[in-house]
Amino acid sequence: MSNVERLKNRLADFNALTSAVAIMEWDQQTYMPRGGAAARAEHVGILSRMAHEMFTADETQKLLEHAKGETRDGTDEQALIRVTQREMDLRTKIPASLVEEKSKLSALAHEAWMVARANNDFAGFAPYIEKMFDIARREAEYLGYKEDIYDALLDQYEEGATSADVRKMFGDLKGPNIQLIKDIKERGKPVDDSGLYGEWDERKQREFTEKLVKTIGFDFNRGRQDTAPHPFCTGWSVGDIRLTTRFKPYVGSAIFGSLHEAGHGMYEQGSPTEWDLTPLAGGVSLGLHESQSRTWENIVGRSKAFWKRFLPDLQTTFPQLKSYDLNTWYRSINKVEPSFIRVEADEVTYNMHILVRFEIETDLLKEKLKVKNLPEAWNAKYTEYLGVTPKTDSEGCLQDVHWSGGSIGYFPTYSMGNLLSYQIWNALRKDVGDTDALIEKGEFQPILSWLQKKIYSQGRRYTPKDLVMRVTSKPMGAEDYLAGLDAKYKEIYDL
Amino acid sequence: MSNVERLKNRLADFNALTSAVAIMEWDQQTYMPRGGAAARAEHVGILSRMAHEMFTADETQKLLEHAKGETRDGTDEQALIRVTQREMDLRTKIPASLVEEKSKLSALAHEAWMVARANNDFAGFAPYIEKMFDIARREAEYLGYKEDIYDALLDQYEEGATSADVRKMFGDLKGPNIQLIKDIKERGKPVDDSGLYGEWDERKQREFTEKLVKTIGFDFNRGRQDTAPHPFCTGWSVGDIRLTTRFKPYVGSAIFGSLHEAGHGMYEQGSPTEWDLTPLAGGVSLGLHESQSRTWENIVGRSKAFWKRFLPDLQTTFPQLKSYDLNTWYRSINKVEPSFIRVEADEVTYNMHILVRFEIETDLLKEKLKVKNLPEAWNAKYTEYLGVTPKTDSEGCLQDVHWSGGSIGYFPTYSMGNLLSYQIWNALRKDVGDTDALIEKGEFQPILSWLQKKIYSQGRRYTPKDLVMRVTSKPMGAEDYLAGLDAKYKEIYDL
Repeated sequence: MSNVERLKNRLADFNALTSAVAIMEWDQQTYMPRGGAAARAEHVGILSRMAHEMFTADETQKLLEHAKGETRDGTDEQALIRVTQREMDLRTKIPASLVEEKSKLSALAHEAWMVARANNDFAGFAPYIEKMFDIARREAEYLGYKEDIYDALLDQYEEGATSADVRKMFGDLKGPNIQLIKDIKERGKPVDDSGLYGEWDERKQREFTEKLVKTIGFDFNRGRQDTAPHPFCTGWSVGDIRLTTRFKPYVGSAIFGSLHEAGHGMYEQGSPTEWDLTPLAGGVSLGLHESQSRTWENIVGRSKAFWKRFLPDLQTTFPQLKSYDLNTWYRSINKVEPSFIRVEADEVTYNMHILVRFEIETDLLKEKLKVKNLPEAWNAKYTEYLGVTPKTDSEGCLQDVHWSGGSIGYFPTYSMGNLLSYQIWNALRKDVGDTDALIEKGEFQPILSWLQKKIYSQGRRYTPKDLVMRVTSKPMGAEDYLAGLDAKYKEIYDL
Repeated sequence: MSNVERLKNRLADFNALTSAVAIMEWDQQTYMPRGGAAARAEHVGILSRMAHEMFTADETQKLLEHAKGETRDGTDEQALIRVTQREMDLRTKIPASLVEEKSKLSALAHEAWMVARANNDFAGFAPYIEKMFDIARREAEYLGYKEDIYDALLDQYEEGATSADVRKMFGDLKGPNIQLIKDIKERGKPVDDSGLYGEWDERKQREFTEKLVKTIGFDFNRGRQDTAPHPFCTGWSVGDIRLTTRFKPYVGSAIFGSLHEAGHGMYEQGSPTEWDLTPLAGGVSLGLHESQSRTWENIVGRSKAFWKRFLPDLQTTFPQLKSYDLNTWYRSINKVEPSFIRVEADEVTYNMHILVRFEIETDLLKEKLKVKNLPEAWNAKYTEYLGVTPKTDSEGCLQDVHWSGGSIGYFPTYSMGNLLSYQIWNALRKDVGDTDALIEKGEFQPILSWLQKKIYSQGRRYTPKDLVMRVTSKPMGAEDYLAGLDAKYKEIYDL
């Protein structure tokens, strides 16, 4: 047996362990009874440790070194080695003692964050932020970076992306985006979406959203949709990808949540069968993944063409929506309204929420901002970028779970996803033609096929930056995104 | 750290792996999309191998040996060592090559069995039976036995039980049981249960059965019920026990299936919290486990008192049953009718199905019966014991999955469960008093508490035979069972 084969066998064992963790976590969010929590935590902890020990064992590292000599340039095996080496670096550069320290702090910080948010008590959470950013600085030093300490952290979530990339992105975005928000607020023709809030039968919502995601191309023979408090997508093989959705008084919550997760899901379902259960399978980065969820949620799912096709079905399902004509419905689901809460933000304001977080976590990391001054800085930026000021820290800087878990450097990938969705869509339209005409007819196959061929079927073969170049012939930029928003929202708001 | 502690840690790792397999298998039967099958088989195979390798590793064996010197008589730790040693023997006495041979043959034999059953083609399955019994003989020699080769196989499923025990059991049962079947057939007042077949709304069946099993004491904070093609009970901690049920044209299918699985489930939920995730947790043997499922399904669930309490609720749920009075309903759900199919058998005929299988697998094992003569022997025994003759092998000797998987020596545990259910119930009544009065009032707590205290909370601390002696003050016998059937069915059939 070659070393490459031996390495593959070992990676298959690793994959079985991480898949066990993934299915346990899925079950925990969907079906697990309350009493199962303690044993679940124990099992997930043990299996995660086993997976980590197996992956980072001397034997695996040796196999990886030996296998390198056996692969030829441009082959899948070489890509496999590259991706495995990256994962090895991420897992071995940080000493086990720091990993453990972070893991323990995360558990405490998560608890403290929930209490602090419930009681609007920033002071109670501040010491944990302090410690978590201290850990992040040490992590970054172990991981290494060329120019900016932030790069080391960001790279964990988006291979090759740098703080400079993010600054460039927001530099291009910031002015026009803030201006658009302002124009809409001051001169836009008002949009009333109050009719979208009410009571909606859960079973009907479930059936309608399942039909929607099936129609756009999510394959229910190789996946399913369940209910969970926070929507997510997971999976453990190209033949078994799971979506979740949730039901709220806002009728769009389930609809756009399902379309969003189906975007993630179709990306995973499009991964090549022959790479299944290996590190080459699945999405290449958080940013690229998010670009696909946002494509199906926003570019397709919030288009007029889409609702020309589906509004009649929705009105049959929920007769209380019968009074909507297409245009009123289209404007309602695209209402722009600056708010304090990121997860409820519309397409236009979303990136400004991210900008606030990026600037703040950069300043905290570099100790340019003291933790005690965080709420003040947060509120000032919300006022400047979004024109609204949170009244409490609970609806301000305590709203997100990320920092309590030490996910520092994660937020920018959301904005990258937004930008990339439009950039990729424009490349798609050059090849596929009149997408509105296809969507109106409910013909999603040409769109999905293009994305499958260009992106989904590439798995993790290329780096994210390489893939963006290959697909769109240019590096990630803000121009397509800004042009897209402008065209769409100036029409909606009659600007 | 003591060797006992080290052993416990290792057993916790083992438990995490077997729990991962268990949740993957549960998911496969309940929610997994079709496309997930191949990866699931791969993952379950890898995790099962890892669990086996970890359990049987030299390091575990050494820890077990060293730990033995550290435990004192009568302690939980000593029981843990005993149970672990038994598991070690079962896993290490048979060489890996034979385990692999059996595993491969099982996969092929299962496929061949499904095809043979579909086409009524015994000859197509015969070579696999031949090979499987050959493997069983070799397994038995490796496992070892004192008197009878069958003992080695039976002991895998029911610790300490012997062929002599089973022969004694059936020797006592056979005559009176066959006579009762005959009397009912020839002189019993006919029972018509045709009104129990029809179309029953699945959601209502689900809700009704959930209410039933909740009322008898299955804790939904520490468990749940889902739908599966073949009902089963599984779990991975005392706080997370899962039942499944199914919906058929026979309204009793879901009701008695749910009560049966809830009996298994409450046994598991009653295991001591401090033994959770260790080999001491859960049911002590298949026979004892089955005694509890049969208790709640038959002794409680098919009693007149039970339906005095629940028939009005059922009739509210399914108004088409409104015409039933209590007595007619009670007689309908206890209809005795010899059939060819074990899994559909009533309480009175069930053991005769098992007797057929026990006698035949004994004769095949000892090569007193040639495989080619199996169908003939099967049909002759059905005619003699049940008064019916299968018209095809598909509804005869091809009906069960067990032999294709090499589960030889398993069947008698079903009958042991039936006998023990009545024997334990009589012991319970001595302490608890008028159980009918409690059941009528829907007060199941005194019954469940007694079973919890005497059986469920004992986990695997004692051997099955010890436990039966402790609980009922005598070894397993047929007298309580026969007396119970006589009293119940002579009244129902006016004999």
